[in-house]
Amino acid sequence: MARIRLGMVGGGNDAFIGGVHRIASRIDDRFELVAGALSSTPEKSAASAEALGIPRSYGSFEDMAKAEAAREDGIEAVSIVTPNHVHAAAAKAFLARGIHVICDKPLTSTMEDATALEDAVAQSKALFILTHNYTGYPMIRQARDMVASGDLGPIRIVQVEYPQDWLTSSLENEGLKQAEWRTDPTRSGVGGSIGDIGTHAHNLACFVTGLEVESLAADLQAFGVGRTLDDNAHMMLRFTGGARGMLWSSQVAPGNENALKLRVYGEKGGLEWSQEDPNYLWFTPHGEPKRLLTRNGAGATGPSQAVSRIPGGHPEGYLEGFATIYNEAADAIRSVQGGAVRAAAMGVLPGIKAGMDGMRFIGACVASSKNDAAWTKL
Amino acid sequence: MARIRLGMVGGGNDAFIGGVHRIASRIDDRFELVAGALSSTPEKSAASAEALGIPRSYGSFEDMAKAEAAREDGIEAVSIVTPNHVHAAAAKAFLARGIHVICDKPLTSTMEDATALEDAVAQSKALFILTHNYTGYPMIRQARDMVASGDLGPIRIVQVEYPQDWLTSSLENEGLKQAEWRTDPTRSGVGGSIGDIGTHAHNLACFVTGLEVESLAADLQAFGVGRTLDDNAHMMLRFTGGARGMLWSSQVAPGNENALKLRVYGEKGGLEWSQEDPNYLWFTPHGEPKRLLTRNGAGATGPSQAVSRIPGGHPEGYLEGFATIYNEAADAIRSVQGGAVRAAAMGVLPGIKAGMDGMRFIGACVASSKNDAAWTKL
Amino acid sequence: MARIRLGMVGGGNDAFIGGVHRIASRIDDRFELVAGALSSTPEKSAASAEALGIPRSYGSFEDMAKAEAAREDGIEAVSIVTPNHVHAAAAKAFLARGIHVICDKPLTSTMEDATALEDAVAQSKALFILTHNYTGYPMIRQARDMVASGDLGPIRIVQVEYPQDWLTSSLENEGLKQAEWRTDPTRSGVGGSIGDIGTHAHNLACFVTGLEVESLAADLQAFGVGRTLDDNAHMMLRFTGGARGMLWSSQVAPGNENALKLRVYGEKGGLEWSQEDPNYLWFTPHGEPKRLLTRNGAGATGPSQAVSRIPGGHPEGYLEGFATIYNEAADAIRSVQGGAVRAAAMGVLPGIKAGMDGMRFIGACVASSKNDAAWTKL
Amino acid sequence: MARIRLGMVGGGNDAFIGGVHRIASRIDDRFELVAGALSSTPEKSAASAEALGIPRSYGSFEDMAKAEAAREDGIEAVSIVTPNHVHAAAAKAFLARGIHVICDKPLTSTMEDATALEDAVAQSKALFILTHNYTGYPMIRQARDMVASGDLGPIRIVQVEYPQDWLTSSLENEGLKQAEWRTDPTRSGVGGSIGDIGTHAHNLACFVTGLEVESLAADLQAFGVGRTLDDNAHMMLRFTGGARGMLWSSQVAPGNENALKLRVYGEKGGLEWSQEDPNYLWFTPHGEPKRLLTRNGAGATGPSQAVSRIPGGHPEGYLEGFATIYNEAADAIRSVQGGAVRAAAMGVLPGIKAGMDGMRFIGACVASSKNDAAWTKL
Repeated sequence: MARIRLGMVGGGNDAFIGGVHRIASRIDDRFELVAGALSSTPEKSAASAEALGIPRSYGSFEDMAKAEAAREDGIEAVSIVTPNHVHAAAAKAFLARGIHVICDKPLTSTMEDATALEDAVAQSKALFILTHNYTGYPMIRQARDMVASGDLGPIRIVQVEYPQDWLTSSLENEGLKQAEWRTDPTRSGVGGSIGDIGTHAHNLACFVTGLEVESLAADLQAFGVGRTLDDNAHMMLRFTGGARGMLWSSQVAPGNENALKLRVYGEKGGLEWSQEDPNYLWFTPHGEPKRLLTRNGAGATGPSQAVSRIPGGHPEGYLEGFATIYNEAADAIRSVQGGAVRAAAMGVLPGIKAGMDGMRFIGACVASSKNDAAWTKL
Repeated sequence: MARIRLGMVGGGNDAFIGGVHRIASRIDDRFELVAGALSSTPEKSAASAEALGIPRSYGSFEDMAKAEAAREDGIEAVSIVTPNHVHAAAAKAFLARGIHVICDKPLTSTMEDATALEDAVAQSKALFILTHNYTGYPMIRQARDMVASGDLGPIRIVQVEYPQDWLTSSLENEGLKQAEWRTDPTRSGVGGSIGDIGTHAHNLACFVTGLEVESLAADLQAFGVGRTLDDNAHMMLRFTGGARGMLWSSQVAPGNENALKLRVYGEKGGLEWSQEDPNYLWFTPHGEPKRLLTRNGAGATGPSQAVSRIPGGHPEGYLEGFATIYNEAADAIRSVQGGAVRAAAMGVLPGIKAGMDGMRFIGACVASSKNDAAWTKL
Repeated sequence: MARIRLGMVGGGNDAFIGGVHRIASRIDDRFELVAGALSSTPEKSAASAEALGIPRSYGSFEDMAKAEAAREDGIEAVSIVTPNHVHAAAAKAFLARGIHVICDKPLTSTMEDATALEDAVAQSKALFILTHNYTGYPMIRQARDMVASGDLGPIRIVQVEYPQDWLTSSLENEGLKQAEWRTDPTRSGVGGSIGDIGTHAHNLACFVTGLEVESLAADLQAFGVGRTLDDNAHMMLRFTGGARGMLWSSQVAPGNENALKLRVYGEKGGLEWSQEDPNYLWFTPHGEPKRLLTRNGAGATGPSQAVSRIPGGHPEGYLEGFATIYNEAADAIRSVQGGAVRAAAMGVLPGIKAGMDGMRFIGACVASSKNDAAWTKL
Repeated sequence: MARIRLGMVGGGNDAFIGGVHRIASRIDDRFELVAGALSSTPEKSAASAEALGIPRSYGSFEDMAKAEAAREDGIEAVSIVTPNHVHAAAAKAFLARGIHVICDKPLTSTMEDATALEDAVAQSKALFILTHNYTGYPMIRQARDMVASGDLGPIRIVQVEYPQDWLTSSLENEGLKQAEWRTDPTRSGVGGSIGDIGTHAHNLACFVTGLEVESLAADLQAFGVGRTLDDNAHMMLRFTGGARGMLWSSQVAPGNENALKLRVYGEKGGLEWSQEDPNYLWFTPHGEPKRLLTRNGAGATGPSQAVSRIPGGHPEGYLEGFATIYNEAADAIRSVQGGAVRAAAMGVLPGIKAGMDGMRFIGACVASSKNDAAWTKL
């Protein structure tokens, strides 16, 4: 099957996430990166494109959208990997021309932008895919499948956390670009750790349990000197159907690299998963010995096997999980190109709804915290 | 040095915690159990005492207090290991006669009882020791020492949790005695999981960090059918000095036996400790590799070595940690008998203040939860 | 039931293992330590006895054996906790007088002594118990039970190791007493690490599998400068019935405290246990998810529950495992005092056979290694 | 930089390892797969090539070598991913025409073939790279660097093992193709588990320590019914310079997927690494707390960072480690194309010497085991 012609917006200047998207798009060989508007100036963009072997370079995403839409062999999809505040405008430019969008999260930096983007998605025939990449891990698919199958019984408790430590010191004052834009409200939006990683925790909890957060009570802190955005967030959650939870996100917890961890407990059993050891899933049926499920190992079910590339015991990691989003995006794109309805084609892929949920989550966190942690609806 | 003559109230009928106290009192050979009022009737008490080889048996704690106080060779100290609602009356009977009290936690079942007991302690010359046993673990002493030494810098974040699973099913409806009294407000007080295990989590967080909880916002749940007391509790904490925290206690989380876990993060580093693997302590100085400290291993400091009996790599456990409370109680008793001031003699031993803190913690949890998780002062 | 009157030989001068035996003898309250010949001179012995609150002190084990045997209320049993080369003479003195012996391992320092002791045991009516203490861990009992029950099918492979690191540097040249006698052939015998800890590994492998080592091929090394006894040993094992194995003992492996570890694999499944985390046992039935069994947790069977004192999740450790040997020794002693046959009374307790097996193991290791690792029968 | 034109021999029929090579070749975008002789017949090959989007398909490797060598835009390198007995002939066909070879391990199925291939490599100007892929893991590079830097001091002990469980049952009798050829001497050669995975363990031990195995004493078993090749192997190792070691390989150890594990101990410290958790490396400097190094985390040095794609805490896995071999192969190929000497261009890449070492290892294992585990030189 022919590879999908892909463009990229952002990702030029040694940005971490741009490189991740490119590797992810190659792993399963479904995409061919043929165009880019990789940086803020035409010169920088062209230099990056040449270094990466990308044939067509543009000075801006608008130029790229226009030109590619006009070509017979123009891009079919685009990856948007810029800082948050550019997502909306870039996505709209491509959606308006029927070019499928694969966009980094969180959705946008403001709720206004988010709503406008939501409209743009509704009016386009193209797909909008948000790279909530952790949903691509095989054992997360396994966990979701087990909850849906009733292995845990009705869910009572959800414990989710995403601690990091890289902002323990105030690196934004020392010239680190990643730290600068992530702690800058004009580029990141109103959420600090809650936007950058809290949204991942929130998304993952909902993805695995199939529940939605109805309301939350949040206490946000900015421990770093001079910070205005939260670098640590505590909150309690109330889910649809009566389950309760806690969520902790932090970027000032020394010793934690990307320690995203999810624990779910129901009337019949529990599950536990850690992003840093993603090939394992603890399953604890009540009253029986704990079981350690492994990726593609004994007990693995269809949904995890379907997104697993190699036998158990040879670990797959972050890039493979990310690649699964790209692989399923390729399936979805080919499917809608073949006439399928968008919603059906998306399958479990995170899209505009996941993005809007994330924006509402950020908004509720900030509102609750300003209101002394009062319960706030999403 | 002569062993301390010890009595015991409760602990007769195969009760879990009575046996623990007895083993703990023997490990370091500082006590001799010579008297007991072990059960609710004279006959049962006598039978238990004989089975255990305890020379003097009484039909009630009042009888025991009176008789032993009158003997030249009467007990010097008493262990109170009854359900919560008996603690206050029993403790007062012995304190009034100058007999030192070692009492199980939580302090009492009502705040009224607690206040009365506080008064009784104030008016007695005897010591009152509360068995917050987890403070006796060597690596907890190590953690406390490291925080006090500034190894972590000023504390920012405290994450503490104590999940269990034994009440996942409603065992109190199936005749399990332990489950019956613990879910019964008339015997346990207003706290369910928060009283039984949440107080341990609260106490440990404060013991290690040297901070106090100023206020909390709590969301309590009773998932078990027909339960009125909480079996799961989520809360956010605000500590003196600006640190923030989260606390989770649960008795309905399948796969968790006694998974008490404490994590503390400061400006310079972090610590992590799990009760189920108590001989280890993770220390994560910011920007350096994680270090795994072991009991009596490389890097162990004075306070942990002082309460450690055997070389590293041969695990000490729950009973040894509990025994440390008894060993230090023996030191304290001999010290006040020799004329020392009570406060000085107590050292780091938990006493009436820890007990009152626990009662205030329970009260604040219940009050906050009833008030939709509003911040509530302790 | 009355406590057993116990004496002790050795264990006076802050020796590690003497204190362990004393704590172990107290934990289950079955013994009362009433006499001792704790040190090499009457004065030192008396000082130690007084410090420990032991009523009767003797200047030598001969004096103690004679005097205690003559008393109506003399000791019923004696613990021998001296360096290896004293075991045989001391044990024989008490066995000859019908006093039960609880002896530290390895059996003796020479095969000659061992054979003489074997004869003495055969001629005595008293019990001889060797403290292969690791056999007292609950999850080791569980493992043995599971192998015996056929949960693993016929055993194919046994991997056992006991690495330590305390002799990485040549501490015996720096005045450390423990290091001095353990590296001295006149006091330790022909085995270094193989005698001190290799015998534990060998014993445990046999205890759990129910198999015996028929022959071995060993390569011993003395890495420490100036050492004559092995401080590291590699060997391959052939068991009765066709199972094969490997054994590694080391005292020069930095980062290992007492990392005794046993893995057993059969046609149907496997088991894995680590001494440093003794409350866990991995069970891996072939083709099913791994299961983590916990002490007194779900899946625990009779033999492990029988030697477990407290509920799961509250760890028991080294001292409790050691105490189990004492507790079962008490049962055995009362049983033979009541007329039971010695062999039946011993149950699973390690005795003279385990001791002789250990001596043959040491002998075979040394012989094989001298013979360029040729296969050598035990 | 232009991508290297790559061909592939084997890997057509859903073979596990062919797919791995293809993904590995794509991850860093250095290769373009343009030709293949993927299966045993022209028809099957063509079908596979079409399914994979490979433009040029050939009916045999001879045809491919000849045709591609004749094209201006012919392949520059070829991946050989057939069963072992085809490696030599295929590799020689390409080497003879100056086409670089990336070959799966072990080198060949017979020593005769190996020697012939060694000659062919010597006479060719092309590179020969053997995919000992585990050497590509970042923390293995870190370990090698630390040993070379003297962090461990002179090496004393090497413990390496590679247990699996997939041949616990005799799947070769149930039609599983992977099991059939791996247990068949005519296709696998004289080594079973020792050839398939023991060579990996041997290679990794040498790669990290910089030492060579001088001699070994091996005891091989075939536990599976009807098997002639070993499915379990125990051996003791003697390294150059005096270090000693043990190696265990097994395919019948239930609960082990690909549990390759390496431990190295020197006079000053130790290292421990597990393939199933490859982003971690334990470093245990003697007398200091254990340290857990993480990929790209604190303490990571140049050689591990150089082969690491993403920040610490986001795990890289097996495919990324494999991709590093491909990435470095691309560097080496471009380097020799630019005129560099072959040996210098190879850097740390495993080549024909590693392959011959593996063959000698297999040969020595079999010879030693037949000779009752006598020490045998490699």
